[in-house]
Amino acid sequence: VTWDPRGSIETKRDGGTVAPDELRRLIAGYVDGTIDEGPMAAFLMACVIHGLNDDETSTMTQAFVDSGTTLLLDDVDRPVVDKHSTGGVSDGVSLIFAPLVAALGLACVKLAGRGLGHTGGTVDKLESIPGMRLDRSLDEITAQARAIGCVIASQTDELVPADGAIYALRDATATVRSVPLIAASVMAKKLAVRSDLILLDVKAGSGAFMRDTDEAAVLARTCLAIARDHDRRAVAAVTDMSQPLGDAIGNALEVSEAVAVLNGGRAGRLRDLSVELAARALCTLADVEPSAARSRAAAALDGGTAADAFRRMVEAQDGDRRVVDDPDAVLPRAPITRPLSAHRAGTLGAVDAAALGEAARALGAGRSEPGDPIDPAVGIVLTPKVGDRLEDGQPIGWIHAREEGAARAADRAVAEAISIVDGAATAPALVHRWLEEVS
Amino acid sequence: VTWDPRGSIETKRDGGTVAPDELRRLIAGYVDGTIDEGPMAAFLMACVIHGLNDDETSTMTQAFVDSGTTLLLDDVDRPVVDKHSTGGVSDGVSLIFAPLVAALGLACVKLAGRGLGHTGGTVDKLESIPGMRLDRSLDEITAQARAIGCVIASQTDELVPADGAIYALRDATATVRSVPLIAASVMAKKLAVRSDLILLDVKAGSGAFMRDTDEAAVLARTCLAIARDHDRRAVAAVTDMSQPLGDAIGNALEVSEAVAVLNGGRAGRLRDLSVELAARALCTLADVEPSAARSRAAAALDGGTAADAFRRMVEAQDGDRRVVDDPDAVLPRAPITRPLSAHRAGTLGAVDAAALGEAARALGAGRSEPGDPIDPAVGIVLTPKVGDRLEDGQPIGWIHAREEGAARAADRAVAEAISIVDGAATAPALVHRWLEEVS
Repeated sequence: VTWDPRGSIETKRDGGTVAPDELRRLIAGYVDGTIDEGPMAAFLMACVIHGLNDDETSTMTQAFVDSGTTLLLDDVDRPVVDKHSTGGVSDGVSLIFAPLVAALGLACVKLAGRGLGHTGGTVDKLESIPGMRLDRSLDEITAQARAIGCVIASQTDELVPADGAIYALRDATATVRSVPLIAASVMAKKLAVRSDLILLDVKAGSGAFMRDTDEAAVLARTCLAIARDHDRRAVAAVTDMSQPLGDAIGNALEVSEAVAVLNGGRAGRLRDLSVELAARALCTLADVEPSAARSRAAAALDGGTAADAFRRMVEAQDGDRRVVDDPDAVLPRAPITRPLSAHRAGTLGAVDAAALGEAARALGAGRSEPGDPIDPAVGIVLTPKVGDRLEDGQPIGWIHAREEGAARAADRAVAEAISIVDGAATAPALVHRWLEEVS
Repeated sequence: VTWDPRGSIETKRDGGTVAPDELRRLIAGYVDGTIDEGPMAAFLMACVIHGLNDDETSTMTQAFVDSGTTLLLDDVDRPVVDKHSTGGVSDGVSLIFAPLVAALGLACVKLAGRGLGHTGGTVDKLESIPGMRLDRSLDEITAQARAIGCVIASQTDELVPADGAIYALRDATATVRSVPLIAASVMAKKLAVRSDLILLDVKAGSGAFMRDTDEAAVLARTCLAIARDHDRRAVAAVTDMSQPLGDAIGNALEVSEAVAVLNGGRAGRLRDLSVELAARALCTLADVEPSAARSRAAAALDGGTAADAFRRMVEAQDGDRRVVDDPDAVLPRAPITRPLSAHRAGTLGAVDAAALGEAARALGAGRSEPGDPIDPAVGIVLTPKVGDRLEDGQPIGWIHAREEGAARAADRAVAEAISIVDGAATAPALVHRWLEEVS
């Protein structure tokens, strides 16, 4: 006889604690098809409403991991860091971070996902490079990490298949918004890769899933507690997503901006955060002093070694290596570019990052449903940041669109998403805080 | 594009009120297959945890009704009463009530269900009468109500198909236990039959779904509020289910006991409650004084007119009419009968009705899952009631079983389910209270 999940569902429905063995059976049963969508969805809703304690969350995370294989990364002789962002707008840090830490003597292995909703996906961005292959076997990933020190590949169903199955159900049943379920989903994918350091970038602000920094810190702490329970080293930054991190929103546009940062030719928050995170990895894994680590990271960008690592990574994954030297010649370009300008003089007071993400999605850069096609070329570039002084009519960026109507709609959306104010405005700190679980 | 239910699920997840149109779309979408099990189960779990207000409950009930047709009962010239029990152990009242009110000049139309769990189902009980057909068309039901004044038939999917679909999902997802969902399920089936009076028997006690009378009264009031919202007359009794109502637990055994009551040859709580409910219907629909109504109901049992109505009903539904005069000759009998006796002298202090129901189910009288086969012949007869004085070794009933091992197991279960105490014991009142919504 198959196991009856209803007792466990009742326990959570009534606000109780579900035993470890029951949690394992629930996850395993859903993955192997002996537990249907209905009972699983009811259980997930009860989890969203009543929560999961740290032990339950840790057990569920392990059950996710146990649903698949583990990427052991044997014989990668550099210390390996795995970096994860909870998702933001114009967050191209991963594209920069992976080759940057490789240039600093570490290795970065990152299994990434596709975008959904208003946030972009690292896989979608890299796929805008002609020829670039993100579907890599576990052996290929290990070999590339050994040879080049950085690899970004698609999530594979060999690792943590339970997460994909359960995330799809959560997406369909309005059960996404739950700190323990989000933490279990994030951390299962990190635990399944045997890195030496898990570096989490938890976004907080209007463009992020977590709207305020306290909420983001709770998610970060939950993730760190899972890491500690599994004897894995992890650090987490809560960083600002109250405005887009970089200037570009859209897949090829974000690759182009990342390449500019990698070539040392672009200052700003995207570079600053990339340096900050890479320096933290270097401090933790190579015992380098923070200020020295930051200097070395900046030097790797300015001296071309990070760009070299990116070039090797693209080449190893069959992408067009010329993207590093002449991105405009290689990356897809939208037929219509429409300039954006400030509608009045003043200070840029706020940018609604989520609204800009939605506007880019409407242009075709993102998805409403998993599996929707995307247009790699389209998007928005908005150059001013909060606090910048603008003149009336000053150029502030570009819409890249497939059609005139879509371009006009995006123009209106951008105008609504930014507010220009009299007086001064100050952007929040880039990094709100660093968290580390000390056991 | 199909409607996306996630906004409504989120509203209930977060404890809000779901708009009428959204509730209608959820129910209709689940019935027509455009909304999957997962989203519906998540929504139901949120309803169980956060509840539904009266307006939501009423709207959901109407959405259930709107999923099917309505039984109009055109040209039935007697006042029609529809009776429903929330389910108990040895609750054969419907078998008696329908012919009894027919004998009193009213009509009773009852669409009944099968048993699940420890409580019996009226359809299962009547199907133990050889030849008896419970699957009747709506036209046949109306014609029989007109001709004979009583009809008990199976629930049909023409009426309230949403209820069957959603109940099955609730059963699978641990979302049964919710007063508004139970009330919507009960009342949708009552609203879909155009009776003049809805008479609800809400059971409270160890053998019922609602363990205490206050909880049962809340369910009763919720049902009455739905009736009021739909301009339907309804009354509700909260009655005792702290011990089995009659002596018999098991399908043919309960028919045999009901026949004994209908023939005027059996006193006790089963008769008393049948008289009480029939008298209430007569008071309400025919403006008869309570004491006169009770006398007329008792006389119909003692004078044979109720038995006549039952005989006509059985005959009209192709059952063997001899069941009224010689039930033992007609009803299936189990091969093994094992006497039960008191294990000590004292007063019968308590009977765990749910445990006896489970013991009868284990004998084969009931189901664990919908669709399981049942054995019509098996069951338990326990004659003493709480407060009765027992001698050591005194015969107290019989096990009717298919196999010796099962009979022994049932014997042990009965011994554990009853407690014989020193000193006195008093049974709770048969009817705790009557409720009527006065608008």
